[in-house]
Amino acid sequence: MGSIANPDPKGRLHAGNINPNVLAAKYAVRGELAVKAEQYRVQLEGASQEVQDTIPFDKVIFANIGNPQQLDQKPITFFRQVLSLLEYPPLLENEEALKTSFGYKQDVIDRAKRLLRDVQSVGAYSQSHGAPAVRKSVAEFIERRDGFPADIANIYLSAGASSGVNTLLNVLCAGPKTGVLVPIPQYPLYTATLSVLNATCVPYYLDESNSWGTDVEGIKAALTKAKEDGIEVRAIVIINPGNPTGASLNPEAIKDVFDIAVDSNLVVMADEVYQTNVFKGEFTSFKKRLRQLQQAAPGKYDHVELASLHSISKGMVGECGHRGGYFELVGFHEDVMENIYKFISIMLCPPVIGQCLLEMMVNPPVPGDPSYELYNKEYNSIRDGLYQRAQTLYEAFKKMEGVECQEPEGAMYLFPTINLPPKAIEAAKAANRQPDEFYALRLLDATGVCVVPGSGFGQKEGTLHFRTTFLAPGTAWADRIIKFHKEFMDEFR
Amino acid sequence: MGSIANPDPKGRLHAGNINPNVLAAKYAVRGELAVKAEQYRVQLEGASQEVQDTIPFDKVIFANIGNPQQLDQKPITFFRQVLSLLEYPPLLENEEALKTSFGYKQDVIDRAKRLLRDVQSVGAYSQSHGAPAVRKSVAEFIERRDGFPADIANIYLSAGASSGVNTLLNVLCAGPKTGVLVPIPQYPLYTATLSVLNATCVPYYLDESNSWGTDVEGIKAALTKAKEDGIEVRAIVIINPGNPTGASLNPEAIKDVFDIAVDSNLVVMADEVYQTNVFKGEFTSFKKRLRQLQQAAPGKYDHVELASLHSISKGMVGECGHRGGYFELVGFHEDVMENIYKFISIMLCPPVIGQCLLEMMVNPPVPGDPSYELYNKEYNSIRDGLYQRAQTLYEAFKKMEGVECQEPEGAMYLFPTINLPPKAIEAAKAANRQPDEFYALRLLDATGVCVVPGSGFGQKEGTLHFRTTFLAPGTAWADRIIKFHKEFMDEFR
Repeated sequence: MGSIANPDPKGRLHAGNINPNVLAAKYAVRGELAVKAEQYRVQLEGASQEVQDTIPFDKVIFANIGNPQQLDQKPITFFRQVLSLLEYPPLLENEEALKTSFGYKQDVIDRAKRLLRDVQSVGAYSQSHGAPAVRKSVAEFIERRDGFPADIANIYLSAGASSGVNTLLNVLCAGPKTGVLVPIPQYPLYTATLSVLNATCVPYYLDESNSWGTDVEGIKAALTKAKEDGIEVRAIVIINPGNPTGASLNPEAIKDVFDIAVDSNLVVMADEVYQTNVFKGEFTSFKKRLRQLQQAAPGKYDHVELASLHSISKGMVGECGHRGGYFELVGFHEDVMENIYKFISIMLCPPVIGQCLLEMMVNPPVPGDPSYELYNKEYNSIRDGLYQRAQTLYEAFKKMEGVECQEPEGAMYLFPTINLPPKAIEAAKAANRQPDEFYALRLLDATGVCVVPGSGFGQKEGTLHFRTTFLAPGTAWADRIIKFHKEFMDEFR
Repeated sequence: MGSIANPDPKGRLHAGNINPNVLAAKYAVRGELAVKAEQYRVQLEGASQEVQDTIPFDKVIFANIGNPQQLDQKPITFFRQVLSLLEYPPLLENEEALKTSFGYKQDVIDRAKRLLRDVQSVGAYSQSHGAPAVRKSVAEFIERRDGFPADIANIYLSAGASSGVNTLLNVLCAGPKTGVLVPIPQYPLYTATLSVLNATCVPYYLDESNSWGTDVEGIKAALTKAKEDGIEVRAIVIINPGNPTGASLNPEAIKDVFDIAVDSNLVVMADEVYQTNVFKGEFTSFKKRLRQLQQAAPGKYDHVELASLHSISKGMVGECGHRGGYFELVGFHEDVMENIYKFISIMLCPPVIGQCLLEMMVNPPVPGDPSYELYNKEYNSIRDGLYQRAQTLYEAFKKMEGVECQEPEGAMYLFPTINLPPKAIEAAKAANRQPDEFYALRLLDATGVCVVPGSGFGQKEGTLHFRTTFLAPGTAWADRIIKFHKEFMDEFR
């Protein structure tokens, strides 16, 4: 980034006069390290042998971003067969050939026909908040998942959960006096968006010693401090299962959050995109818990405003590139919902093919359907693979000097603490880097493994971490990390 | 919208404390009229015969939005065949069956293979600004179109042009003192986004008497007034061909815009999404014109900053639902480009299948390719159909009392003036409506034709218009408008 003090001699826009809120935003997941990793990838693919020989690894492992299909996760057959028909409906004119030459089952054909009736063409705009039939399927999914009713009028489809978060924060932030409680560490979408909106991020620290759980006293203290600073705290963000922590909240912890929301009039934003990525215990949705609490203590929770978000990018679906998702609103004022609708209508609608994929994610083949057996096999194989990879990496971290890691509970990430020797900290300082950033850069240069330093997510003062996905196949890359770490420690001990 | 003065008794968020900039934003294209039209559509499909009998038409015509495939425009076969293969690559394992059972040509198969090599899986995130191979195709397209080089480093893919406009305005607006020149009438994306960003819209009026051309003196006067008001005007938006006006700018008019940009240090934002929808004369891109001017007058135009936008939603492609587009930056400061990259990376990436469709739009089959003949036939048939529909509607408007309409030049819209009798104006006032809104509501209620009142785009004080697309097939709906208009005039004469 150039010097902000010097205006551009050519009179162009420059860092000193563009939107200062965009300038201030930070988004490390796709920052310098990711750019450097991509440069390595391009060199390894296209450069001369001479250049390639200078690179000490033969493949870049993008462990910086939860992008399953960039690694080796295969899309689920049922979903993609239906999408192929939606993209080229004349295929439906020869069902026999689809079946005999390509193995399409009758339920694939039926689903495609139904979705085409619903959306007409995937090349047409849908309603701003998504095609009614897809929203209906989402509502029915939520009812099955939670055992409580869901209303299609409260379902808004989005281009991935990120776009939903962007919408919600845009509507509920009214300037620098608006505060939003954000867990630290967090997925930097939240801090970056609050920065762009010039609203105030009110950090609350997750408790690493308690499996990265929420810390009620910590949240209350953050609230009190914000109020003292003249901040009106409007909302609390919960990422469950956690990103980058992988932690999964139990029903008691969720109740604690709602109790705070009731006491302090907070909108609860539940980012539940990893809801099917749970290894330990069972996922409880915030919506279900809220309805339980409303039944158990009539009156007390009636005015809670809850927005819960979901996505087709994660879970066993992993269809990031299709940009699909939704959010459900509970308890919101009608005027606020009207403004949410208006806001999203400015961008017209989420991608329609992604909407159709969302429909299938929430309404997959069931036992007895011709495609069920294959669907189930593929789904379970992805789930089991993720679990095994998480365990492999966890075991590797346990072996590494000065590295402490919580047992994997969910999501797609591990977020180990790294205790670096003082000499490494000094070397980082000399290189004008955060110590964890210094470590991650060295890791990338030595092994081709791209992780994100903990400072990109926020961490308690004086602690250091990095986030890695456990999506990459094989164990060789974990071995590369172990070897690098030993050499790094030896160098700076 | 509820009363803003009364806070919500339940302590929830309400219109009085959410983001006032979102509250203030207006977006009529998908506003009240569109919602009412959708209600009619649902009633006509699903309601009892009794309810249906109360509705004086049997079909809603959505002429409010440029959504070709919602009406009867068929997608282009080549594009969709390739997309079907991208969605389900195992189809490529039986090329023979694709050819014999479904008529796929070899170039369809080859293109799909190439795109799959480039993006790996359409379910994976791409780079934030789009897959490199797609950006390369876009750069080559621009070179062919303009006869001047284009650099892949300056190409940013987006989720439709709307998302590109959103990015650019977010980065270049630094608060209420930032002004952006916006043509009036305009596509309300611009005013709505400036409102959300709390920046200042500096309107300049297009000259209806001169085929809705740009009026240099009017722009200069708007600039002078804005400066007097303490506004730093940063950019000028040009929509060419025009939306809602349909006007197409000649090279001399484009030079005038660049001259103003040089004099006043303005970023030129050229919204060129209708660049292939030109009936009269030839489209000249702002990029081409800039390079010509830079050659003709060395030095003078060297520091011009130009952002030009394009989309897969319009033209003969009409793939709105796939949300694809791009913008090209020329002359921007490196720091500003870095911030643009950071901003878009927060939302991860545009839909990858839409990126692939963009690649095909800019790099379609050429003479000699197996798919060329069909592609060319489909393309021309859509183009000719649009021209004929525009003419039909234009002829209809010429017959209507008090209606004046410019000859269609391009885009997908007509924007006639309507001169309403004083009694109609009074009736609108009594109904608490703008007169053109009153007219459009009556038109919808009587005929099922949904148009957007001119007030949704801005219009000179005291003038009234409406915007209609000319996408709907047949002539019956034009006849319905003529009949309604006569009855409306008779009622209020």
